[in-house]
Amino acid sequence: MHRFFLPLENFTADIIPLPADTADQIRKVLRLKDGDTICLLDNVGKAFEAEIEYTDAKSICAHVKRSYTVLNEPGCRISMFLSLTQREKFEWMLQKCTEAGAFAIIPIYSERSLVRNGDDVIHKYPRWQKIIQEAAEQSERGIIPILHKPMKFSDAVQTGSTDTVRLFFWEEERQQTLQQVLQPMKAGLSAASIIIGPEGGFSRDEADLATSTGWISTTLGKRIYRVETAAIASVILTLYELDRQ
Amino acid sequence: MHRFFLPLENFTADIIPLPADTADQIRKVLRLKDGDTICLLDNVGKAFEAEIEYTDAKSICAHVKRSYTVLNEPGCRISMFLSLTQREKFEWMLQKCTEAGAFAIIPIYSERSLVRNGDDVIHKYPRWQKIIQEAAEQSERGIIPILHKPMKFSDAVQTGSTDTVRLFFWEEERQQTLQQVLQPMKAGLSAASIIIGPEGGFSRDEADLATSTGWISTTLGKRIYRVETAAIASVILTLYELDRQ
Repeated sequence: MHRFFLPLENFTADIIPLPADTADQIRKVLRLKDGDTICLLDNVGKAFEAEIEYTDAKSICAHVKRSYTVLNEPGCRISMFLSLTQREKFEWMLQKCTEAGAFAIIPIYSERSLVRNGDDVIHKYPRWQKIIQEAAEQSERGIIPILHKPMKFSDAVQTGSTDTVRLFFWEEERQQTLQQVLQPMKAGLSAASIIIGPEGGFSRDEADLATSTGWISTTLGKRIYRVETAAIASVILTLYELDRQ
Repeated sequence: MHRFFLPLENFTADIIPLPADTADQIRKVLRLKDGDTICLLDNVGKAFEAEIEYTDAKSICAHVKRSYTVLNEPGCRISMFLSLTQREKFEWMLQKCTEAGAFAIIPIYSERSLVRNGDDVIHKYPRWQKIIQEAAEQSERGIIPILHKPMKFSDAVQTGSTDTVRLFFWEEERQQTLQQVLQPMKAGLSAASIIIGPEGGFSRDEADLATSTGWISTTLGKRIYRVETAAIASVILTLYELDRQ
């Protein structure tokens, strides 16, 4: 069943008028028929199964048949601090981190990043937002991960309260595994942050800055992952370890 | 340091003549200089650090300075049965499964696969082989995963001895987690097989065939992954669970 996030204010009655872009997609791309069932999501955790009705040549409304709480969201809210990198790779990270269950995404730039200024990417935000929303719909998420403004690495490491876990995945860390870090503190952990470096990695100074502000230097294991692989592996493994009995 | 797999027969002495394609890459793409150090790999688990010497306008040889055993290989040999899908996505799976530590890759086709005949993809093998080799070099693997010929799903499920674990990741499986499957049997497990379905998933008949031949129906968790995400998640999580203390 096709899934669509709509603005929360649309969910006021059992008959929901669909926004023009959703109606266009249903009509022109998906070619759904009158009476077909779709799933509407309010982005605060509820899903509404509804039948579509073509009301005129352009408009569609949806008749809600049942609603339920989406139970696919992870118990722990993971904020992903992702280093800006070349377009395709970054978009891929946005999509995959969303599928894997990230709660928020914060693009960052650091010493060795390809992108050196957050303002340079602001024009990409509508496209990125769309990638994230589509990935959230496709992977049956209950919420769309929040895309924050870009931050400098040195500002990013200062964020996040010290009562959450903040994981600094670093290729020069050889000892401390995810299991060692998470196991003692995972009961009831409600938030975690993960930082992923650029292609050239973080410098020693950057690593020192992160650990001095409470980030925990952690290894993803023996094999060397590309940036985008490290991003997806870190979300998947963190949520796996936290869910594990 | 740049890493290159060479044919085993090249490693007969401490001065190793490099094959023409490796020499070309060093000269024209990487532009390494006389005396630069590279790492040569014999694809059976040993690495050789060596200095390059430009012997004439076209040839390069490498002087071995030290050798060591690569310790990055997983203890468990994972065979990935990957459904053939559109080009870009399939190549991406080859690259990522290699980075993540797969031992062998077997392209398969099933009821709902885009590709319906293994012969149609044989011409792509040289390119696929190259993608796998480059990913193995970049991720510091000790071996290049073996790329097998394509197989029909119904033949693929018959492979693999019953004393290994054979995981059938299926979106309709809701109960049995990776942890539940692997934990009781993971001590000393030396081989495992993983099967990943096409975009349309496996049919109920296919699932029945797999489980009746000893494959264990397993879930990757609550969120719905795209095919390529399921492929990488399944290798990463299987190796994580097996390595976990």
